[in-house]
Amino acid sequence: MKEISEYQSLVLEQLELLEKEKSDLALYDPVSYILSLGGKRLRPVLTLLATDLFGGKLEDSYKSAVGIEMFHNFTLLHDDIMDDAPLRRGMETVHEKWDINSAILSGDVLFVQAFVMVTSCKDKYLRSVLDLFNVTAIEVCEGQHLDMEFETREDVTIPEYIEMIKLKTSVLVGCALKLGAILADASKEDQENLYDFGVNLGIAFQIQDDILDVYGDSALFGKQVGGDILANKKTYLLLKALEDSTPQQEEELNTWLNKSTYDNAEKVTAVTTVFTDLKVKEQADEVMWEYYEKSIDFLNKINLPEENKNYLLDFAKTLIERSK
Amino acid sequence: MKEISEYQSLVLEQLELLEKEKSDLALYDPVSYILSLGGKRLRPVLTLLATDLFGGKLEDSYKSAVGIEMFHNFTLLHDDIMDDAPLRRGMETVHEKWDINSAILSGDVLFVQAFVMVTSCKDKYLRSVLDLFNVTAIEVCEGQHLDMEFETREDVTIPEYIEMIKLKTSVLVGCALKLGAILADASKEDQENLYDFGVNLGIAFQIQDDILDVYGDSALFGKQVGGDILANKKTYLLLKALEDSTPQQEEELNTWLNKSTYDNAEKVTAVTTVFTDLKVKEQADEVMWEYYEKSIDFLNKINLPEENKNYLLDFAKTLIERSK
Repeated sequence: MKEISEYQSLVLEQLELLEKEKSDLALYDPVSYILSLGGKRLRPVLTLLATDLFGGKLEDSYKSAVGIEMFHNFTLLHDDIMDDAPLRRGMETVHEKWDINSAILSGDVLFVQAFVMVTSCKDKYLRSVLDLFNVTAIEVCEGQHLDMEFETREDVTIPEYIEMIKLKTSVLVGCALKLGAILADASKEDQENLYDFGVNLGIAFQIQDDILDVYGDSALFGKQVGGDILANKKTYLLLKALEDSTPQQEEELNTWLNKSTYDNAEKVTAVTTVFTDLKVKEQADEVMWEYYEKSIDFLNKINLPEENKNYLLDFAKTLIERSK
Repeated sequence: MKEISEYQSLVLEQLELLEKEKSDLALYDPVSYILSLGGKRLRPVLTLLATDLFGGKLEDSYKSAVGIEMFHNFTLLHDDIMDDAPLRRGMETVHEKWDINSAILSGDVLFVQAFVMVTSCKDKYLRSVLDLFNVTAIEVCEGQHLDMEFETREDVTIPEYIEMIKLKTSVLVGCALKLGAILADASKEDQENLYDFGVNLGIAFQIQDDILDVYGDSALFGKQVGGDILANKKTYLLLKALEDSTPQQEEELNTWLNKSTYDNAEKVTAVTTVFTDLKVKEQADEVMWEYYEKSIDFLNKINLPEENKNYLLDFAKTLIERSK
């Protein structure tokens, strides 16, 4: 096994190779742009890591891994239009730098390129790879749909929220890992356990993201603390707070949710105070650890040498223990 | 072989089956809507027809054929956003009836569904089917990109225009036919000849569409005569007219192209007069028939009984002789 940073370097090399071969049609400029914005390249790293775990050849997974990164970037490109986001990783979003039409169409072609790359595998794996990717892509669209729908709904429940984050983000974590396992000829059972490890770890990660948005150290977390609160985002914390609140606390929360003008720091402090009074952080932590433990249970079922499983365990720990 | 209307009925039956099985997530409402708007279902009909021509089982092609129709509708859905089109087949477009975000995301999920359906074939055909569909999908995006780019360019040449219509519409005609041939186990050579037949016929059809827009009988053609002229669309006729015009005719054309207010009938008559003076209809007819003949040359190379080839020939004739 390699260091995570080594897998990252391999992914970057592959992305650079692709960039060199690219068509000079202006359609592909936004594709190059979004793929160049950086990020941790977590998903393709997971694909390579999984192939390595099961003793496969890394070269056999390069293209599929890059395809997963392309798919992820396609979703970012279209999601940014839908969310009317001005910035992505601190840079202008594609629809801001170009226009909405370019962002739609470049996203579409990036999506096809993702299919091409993900399915660039030996023919014997093609059906499994394609089935996995098709199902995942549909689920990610459904997750984004639910996320948008929740914005205008007042009755979102916590199980619905968990289902949404599972579809929108966690299934792709599971997919990236399972893809690497398929390409390394892992058994069906191991593929499924690795998938479930990834999905549950993804849910834990997302709940932790909600917690860190309010209680994280902004320097370590890398985002503005309270961003979700200012955006009235229906996170685990807000949904739990609304569920557990006294009538008075509920009114306090709703007052802030409905205010159109306010001082940012004041709103963050006020909402955080209600969260803290209701101990929603502790409850979110508990649920986050439940999903983490569930992921580790699946990890333990995988038929791999302890050494390899410990590698995955360390990876999971590092992911969850970030900025705490 | 069956009547075209019988293949159409089979496609409609399959679409109805799909509709019955559909998820009740609101994400899929625009998908059902656009698939229900009708049309000739030409592309899936071509897939079934090709399977039948080569003695394949129609049932083996049902899903892939429907996938081609889904892909076509996905392109319509996203193109309508980009073109800001209010109507599609006389009904509200998806982004008008819902909103742009719903149209983007429903389009995306319809695109994945198209992949699922197109690749619902026997494993032995999967690689060929997927390669064909991937290449076609990329080309269709590139064609749409060129079409949009041409709107703001003053120097579009006729070869560029032909390349654009080939990518935007004709390759999908070739793809639909080739798909049916692959699924009927036709030889590679026959697959390619059928593909080239389709692509060239598609180009002929598109040039004829440009001609009919100006010189067609609106009752038979089903569209408003002069629609392209009013929209300043860079059709074969306009590009040819700009190429062949005297300085005075060029000025006349540019005056109309740049006018922001005008009487519709007056603009159509004035531009048509320049076209007629320059005999661009005759030249477009000639080029259209060249592509038609080219398509027939490819048809003749296919190793099929004369009877089957005559069926395709009759089909091509009917397509080209519409409303003339």
